[in-house]
Amino acid sequence: MADREHIQLAHGGGGQLMGELIEQVILPALSCAEGPALSCAEGPALSCAEGPAPGGQQPGRLTDAAVLAAGGGRIAFTTDSYVVKPLEFPGGDIGKLAICGTVNDLAVAGAQPIAISMGLVIPEGMEIALLRRLLASAGLAARQAGVAVVTGDTKVIERGSLDALVINTCGIGRLSERAKLGFDCLQAGDRVLLSGPLGEHGLAVMSLREHLGFSAELKSDCAAIHCMAGELVEELGPQVRFMRDPTRGGLAATLVSIAESAGRSIEIDESAIPVNRTALAAAEMLGLDLLTVANEGKLVAVVAAEAAEQARAILARHEIARRAAVIGTIGQETAPPLVEMVTSIGGRRIVQMPYGEELPRIC
Amino acid sequence: MADREHIQLAHGGGGQLMGELIEQVILPALSCAEGPALSCAEGPALSCAEGPAPGGQQPGRLTDAAVLAAGGGRIAFTTDSYVVKPLEFPGGDIGKLAICGTVNDLAVAGAQPIAISMGLVIPEGMEIALLRRLLASAGLAARQAGVAVVTGDTKVIERGSLDALVINTCGIGRLSERAKLGFDCLQAGDRVLLSGPLGEHGLAVMSLREHLGFSAELKSDCAAIHCMAGELVEELGPQVRFMRDPTRGGLAATLVSIAESAGRSIEIDESAIPVNRTALAAAEMLGLDLLTVANEGKLVAVVAAEAAEQARAILARHEIARRAAVIGTIGQETAPPLVEMVTSIGGRRIVQMPYGEELPRIC
Repeated sequence: MADREHIQLAHGGGGQLMGELIEQVILPALSCAEGPALSCAEGPALSCAEGPAPGGQQPGRLTDAAVLAAGGGRIAFTTDSYVVKPLEFPGGDIGKLAICGTVNDLAVAGAQPIAISMGLVIPEGMEIALLRRLLASAGLAARQAGVAVVTGDTKVIERGSLDALVINTCGIGRLSERAKLGFDCLQAGDRVLLSGPLGEHGLAVMSLREHLGFSAELKSDCAAIHCMAGELVEELGPQVRFMRDPTRGGLAATLVSIAESAGRSIEIDESAIPVNRTALAAAEMLGLDLLTVANEGKLVAVVAAEAAEQARAILARHEIARRAAVIGTIGQETAPPLVEMVTSIGGRRIVQMPYGEELPRIC
Repeated sequence: MADREHIQLAHGGGGQLMGELIEQVILPALSCAEGPALSCAEGPALSCAEGPAPGGQQPGRLTDAAVLAAGGGRIAFTTDSYVVKPLEFPGGDIGKLAICGTVNDLAVAGAQPIAISMGLVIPEGMEIALLRRLLASAGLAARQAGVAVVTGDTKVIERGSLDALVINTCGIGRLSERAKLGFDCLQAGDRVLLSGPLGEHGLAVMSLREHLGFSAELKSDCAAIHCMAGELVEELGPQVRFMRDPTRGGLAATLVSIAESAGRSIEIDESAIPVNRTALAAAEMLGLDLLTVANEGKLVAVVAAEAAEQARAILARHEIARRAAVIGTIGQETAPPLVEMVTSIGGRRIVQMPYGEELPRIC
């Protein structure tokens, strides 16, 4: 019987158990349903009632970034902590990941990044040369993405109490006026696009960890996707219904989450999903389902049917999305909403939310 | 001989060694002196050259929050990771600390908080009841401060690789139009104010850790200071020259940092510094200098001489600052700029930047 009194690794896996933790423990505590108790005359610029507090979001409908009113426009605000082990892997490292992951969370909210913060929690005894490499990689990724790291914090934890670097990045982005994204925007017949082959990030990390010997061929897809996401939104406007990057829990968690939040079934076509053959081989050796493995440079977008081909072409203009494909269709409102995959041999399979973390510390 | 190749605890202590790490390792890596390599047509809303990137700040002149243009106004953006052990202590816990600390970093930048993010890194095996308590405390502190926690992230680290909860909070605040704060604003004759007695946070945590038995009398001063900071700025405008909360490294690190950044000497009067007698006794038992112990609900403000008494009265309107006092005076520009304390018995002592971390994991 599962231990319900203590945190399990699966609580961090992006699956069902993590959803329960967020809905049952985190959101109720941080909710501000009763409104804030303003403690000073000036008061806050945004009261709880107006703001998109977690407590104000319906469980299961959480998005990657909060949207706030600021000045004349809207800004997106997001946070992510990175705990990947090993710290360096083929195609990236924790520094690059920490920049790309937060840029991407802004991107799928329809925002272009303005500024990033970086909080470092460093284990005592860490080699400074390694820290320099990781930070140089983060700096390069930020410059390539056109975003500045504007504020930071540094903590050191004593030897034996932390085994590897933890990086938190927060991002602020400016929301496009053309972005009209949300679960409520989905319509039956909308198409689901995926920007490229699955699982390369998670499997590159796992292959290194398990000494599988794929390192030469299998590289993390870690990359910033804000350019292609931004172009989708600018060129297609409200025809883009929803975007998400399929990180922890992979494509499976992303699609199930969309289906449940929108209350609509989704059908995907296995033969349409772009696959990297080395990743597929690695997944098979590790006994993993490619649909549940984490990615960090991929985009899932739901767009109006009539804009699907144009959306695919916009994505495919980018080197990292040459193999972008239309992989599925949004269905009617149903209960329960299911994600079904038509397999390559014509069968049908229910795609389930992964329970927890097959791959700990992957991002 | 000190090991220069590996991270030491003192690198996280808010003192001299941490300054070197930030200036020599972190800032150069994240600097964008060469400008960002914009990778997409839309481009970022704020280019590196315009933004207050760490690389654009002069070493030693780092402030608690970055200031960004957004819409018609200015917003402040800050981040802090909390690693305090034990997680609960008299007067507070890591949840309350994580909210107050980030609210305070915004406050001393002259901003009122709009929104906070919370990134949790949880050790596998943590008792869920404890996590609930800590999050409830964070939620309460946020409501009391009138700020909403709007976005979050949850990671779990496997057993044995992390020994306690790590919380990162980022904050966005709206900068007051009345705030004209900066090291350059300091003038000879400006007065230094301190909002209350020193060291209560650090010593409450240390007393518990060392089983000193002061727990009943000694409580952390952990509190949000944005109300009094906001009133100072609104009522006194540019007569408020600079504000900072004396956390890691205590009052000593705060004053030395101000002196070095402004290039001006500072003289403080020991007999004017408010002292909690229990805290003093605890510091003596632990062999610590009260000036270097961390606080989390205190404000150091530099104000024009003619506004000093009014500033003190504004602070003293608040329960947490009943004992606010004028403790010193800003001097002429000098090299090297020194902080000198006139002791209670009329002697003079140089106040130095603490080297590193006498008190690890205190905040």
